[in-house]
Amino acid sequence: MTAREIAAMLGGELSGEGERRVAGVAGLDSAGPDDLAYAEGARALAEAARSRAGCLLIPEGARLAGRTTIAVKRPKLALIRVAEALYPAPAVIPGIHPTAVVAPDAEVAASASVGPGVVIASRARVGAETSLGAGVVLGEGVEVGSHCRLHPRVTVYAGARLGDRVTLHAGVVIGSDGFGYVLDEGRHRKFPQLGAVVIENDVEIGANSTVDRGSLGTTVIGEGTKIDNLVQIAHNVKIGKHCILAAQTGVSGSVEIGDYVVMAGQVGIGERARIEDHAVIGGQAGILPGKVVRAGSVLWGTPARPLAVFKRMHAVWTRLPDWIERRGKS
Amino acid sequence: MTAREIAAMLGGELSGEGERRVAGVAGLDSAGPDDLAYAEGARALAEAARSRAGCLLIPEGARLAGRTTIAVKRPKLALIRVAEALYPAPAVIPGIHPTAVVAPDAEVAASASVGPGVVIASRARVGAETSLGAGVVLGEGVEVGSHCRLHPRVTVYAGARLGDRVTLHAGVVIGSDGFGYVLDEGRHRKFPQLGAVVIENDVEIGANSTVDRGSLGTTVIGEGTKIDNLVQIAHNVKIGKHCILAAQTGVSGSVEIGDYVVMAGQVGIGERARIEDHAVIGGQAGILPGKVVRAGSVLWGTPARPLAVFKRMHAVWTRLPDWIERRGKS
Amino acid sequence: MTAREIAAMLGGELSGEGERRVAGVAGLDSAGPDDLAYAEGARALAEAARSRAGCLLIPEGARLAGRTTIAVKRPKLALIRVAEALYPAPAVIPGIHPTAVVAPDAEVAASASVGPGVVIASRARVGAETSLGAGVVLGEGVEVGSHCRLHPRVTVYAGARLGDRVTLHAGVVIGSDGFGYVLDEGRHRKFPQLGAVVIENDVEIGANSTVDRGSLGTTVIGEGTKIDNLVQIAHNVKIGKHCILAAQTGVSGSVEIGDYVVMAGQVGIGERARIEDHAVIGGQAGILPGKVVRAGSVLWGTPARPLAVFKRMHAVWTRLPDWIERRGKS
Repeated sequence: MTAREIAAMLGGELSGEGERRVAGVAGLDSAGPDDLAYAEGARALAEAARSRAGCLLIPEGARLAGRTTIAVKRPKLALIRVAEALYPAPAVIPGIHPTAVVAPDAEVAASASVGPGVVIASRARVGAETSLGAGVVLGEGVEVGSHCRLHPRVTVYAGARLGDRVTLHAGVVIGSDGFGYVLDEGRHRKFPQLGAVVIENDVEIGANSTVDRGSLGTTVIGEGTKIDNLVQIAHNVKIGKHCILAAQTGVSGSVEIGDYVVMAGQVGIGERARIEDHAVIGGQAGILPGKVVRAGSVLWGTPARPLAVFKRMHAVWTRLPDWIERRGKS
Repeated sequence: MTAREIAAMLGGELSGEGERRVAGVAGLDSAGPDDLAYAEGARALAEAARSRAGCLLIPEGARLAGRTTIAVKRPKLALIRVAEALYPAPAVIPGIHPTAVVAPDAEVAASASVGPGVVIASRARVGAETSLGAGVVLGEGVEVGSHCRLHPRVTVYAGARLGDRVTLHAGVVIGSDGFGYVLDEGRHRKFPQLGAVVIENDVEIGANSTVDRGSLGTTVIGEGTKIDNLVQIAHNVKIGKHCILAAQTGVSGSVEIGDYVVMAGQVGIGERARIEDHAVIGGQAGILPGKVVRAGSVLWGTPARPLAVFKRMHAVWTRLPDWIERRGKS
Repeated sequence: MTAREIAAMLGGELSGEGERRVAGVAGLDSAGPDDLAYAEGARALAEAARSRAGCLLIPEGARLAGRTTIAVKRPKLALIRVAEALYPAPAVIPGIHPTAVVAPDAEVAASASVGPGVVIASRARVGAETSLGAGVVLGEGVEVGSHCRLHPRVTVYAGARLGDRVTLHAGVVIGSDGFGYVLDEGRHRKFPQLGAVVIENDVEIGANSTVDRGSLGTTVIGEGTKIDNLVQIAHNVKIGKHCILAAQTGVSGSVEIGDYVVMAGQVGIGERARIEDHAVIGGQAGILPGKVVRAGSVLWGTPARPLAVFKRMHAVWTRLPDWIERRGKS
């Protein structure tokens, strides 16, 4: 594509060489003359001015003299759109690899791709243009929608249901048993883990993350929610739409999470807590069991508190040794 | 089963329609007229009264007028017993799938089930009525007892030994090398990781958890211990019987854990710590290397302290900013 | 080997029976008359004196009367050398298992070993004497150097490059998509995850750990770095040479880590932080996004502080309830 074509696609304002060819997108540090990069903020714009990028997406109102630039409202978002045009998702090549093991009563769409060593159990269904990487295992009655991508070695236990355009990275486990026991004469007896698990449309889950089935109820990951690597979602958890859960976060049983909630890495949420819409939980924070986190609040620490409170407390704690030394001796 | 049959099985006191049919168990929120649910505690009993459940397990002494109820000592435990009767574990269908790769000198019980793509190396042994899910890999000389269930894609390194009735969820790794190195002229040289790993009877381990082999000694998970998803057990760890380790907990090398110890999620235990019987460690707590946690103690925080001490400290820390503001200026 | 041969190999000073045969290495607690063990420090030497070990590696200057000992500068390191001699790595048996699926244009060295069910995609390359365990999946164009060992069920996404003598334990995922989204009209749009991932020579990565590819740049794990189980390395992270990252540590996007950095278990590093050479981060510590950790510093806590500062603060915090009780009432 030329810079002019990109500017037209984005509805952005071109400055410089309209015929400059763009072959790929790159970061400012590594972009070359054939690459498009983006810059948001003063520091990035300064770096952009020094960069070798052939074409630059910059914010409306900014200028980079002597460079080919396209001014747009949101340069980072614009880069995504260009990347989607330049690097379309690889075509799903339909067909079932001869080494795959597919139950006779499973239904696999003719346009789906089933990789080597995939195992599809009885009554499972795989939708149109869905791709199952090598070694994926779908248990009995599993439903996978259309346009999904399951990377190699994903395991989906019996009965789990995935919507459309779901992406599961390598090693993800969906529908494993929840962790519930009752002590009975000195031994842990397992509480029934018979429930369902539903992964709605447009969910993405990172490598080696795990999502347990409900015990009696259902575990739900809402539409458009994005989950990073090595995250644990326990039984009966309900996660709303368009949430972000960063790596190694753990959500305990029966937690309810609203829409647009953001959790940084290594967060822990105790059983039956409720996290309302748009809440933000800082890295490594811990929410106590049963706690309610109000909509839009921003929390940090263990036990978690509002960020402003935590910061004030923290500043005091930090000064405390000196303060107490002066006072303590008086 | 009818309500009367269930009451007889449990030795509970029936009230209401003895001939009511129970087809399944469910939670109070989703139970319908064919379902059995349980209620423990005042709040659950109130919810039970409003629920649509056809039959309810309630504590001895409680009453729900106009409902079919069975009064028992421990309703939740009773529900487990009913669920075990209504949903027996799926029968293990004996046989070795034609795509499995089994070494000629491996011994697989005739009643065992070996799924598609399973790999069983030389001299490994698989006991009666054990089920190996798709893609399970057993290294050389691995021993798996009877009535075990290894879900898809479990990997067991050479020489590991599993008892009877062991359940390993998808993606579990048993017997990987411990993490030990010695710096030698600027490079990390690996300490020998030659030890064994023993998983005793009735252990259950959650999805994608990892258990390292001993370096020179043996890693042991004691009988009846239950481990959640994404837990790390390092080399030479000894875990006693009937412990509970919740998700994402990490146990460092050479830690010793007694019987009936409970760890909440994301706990970290430092090297060579010793956790005595019946200790309880709260979520995200950190036990320092070498620390001894006395039998029955309840700890929280990093570094962990007795819960009562931690709570008192925490209350003070929380009030500190206001307190110091008043004092600091005087 | 005899004790005399071992002493000669190590250049150590033999005392006792030079002809004593050593069949294996063991820990002091389990060593028998045919075993070699090592003792460093007074406590270990006392245990050594009581042990049944046939031969003992002890520090120069130490003595154990009546025992066969070899005095060396670094007994633990000496044990590694003996173990390497007694237990050579298993020979790599060349050949491609008939159940493996290898693209016609992939290049696999004749001396490499390709296990059952392995999948090697188009244009991938596997070097000399490299061993791929059962179920390993290599995506398109993946490069694996010589003398690598990939344990069962490792997944390497398209384009990732591994150096020589790289060890990846079971379930490791290399090159999964980074976690980056931009909110656009209420939905998360995925930032392009097109970058590379490079694992340099002599790196070892523990079971079920995950390493994301770069978004636009490259994720790099430097030569000789050792990573434990269940660790998360995000997109664009650069880790230097000879670092140690213990289990369940998480490193966020675009973090830069120098050489010889040590991180204990469950550490969390925020985005774009920079950790300079030889820094040491204590267990469960959290480094804030963008933070710079100076070379050689030792940190602990969340947010992390120099260990000495943290200890002083902590001592004060611990005494605070009593202190404030006395003062608060005055």
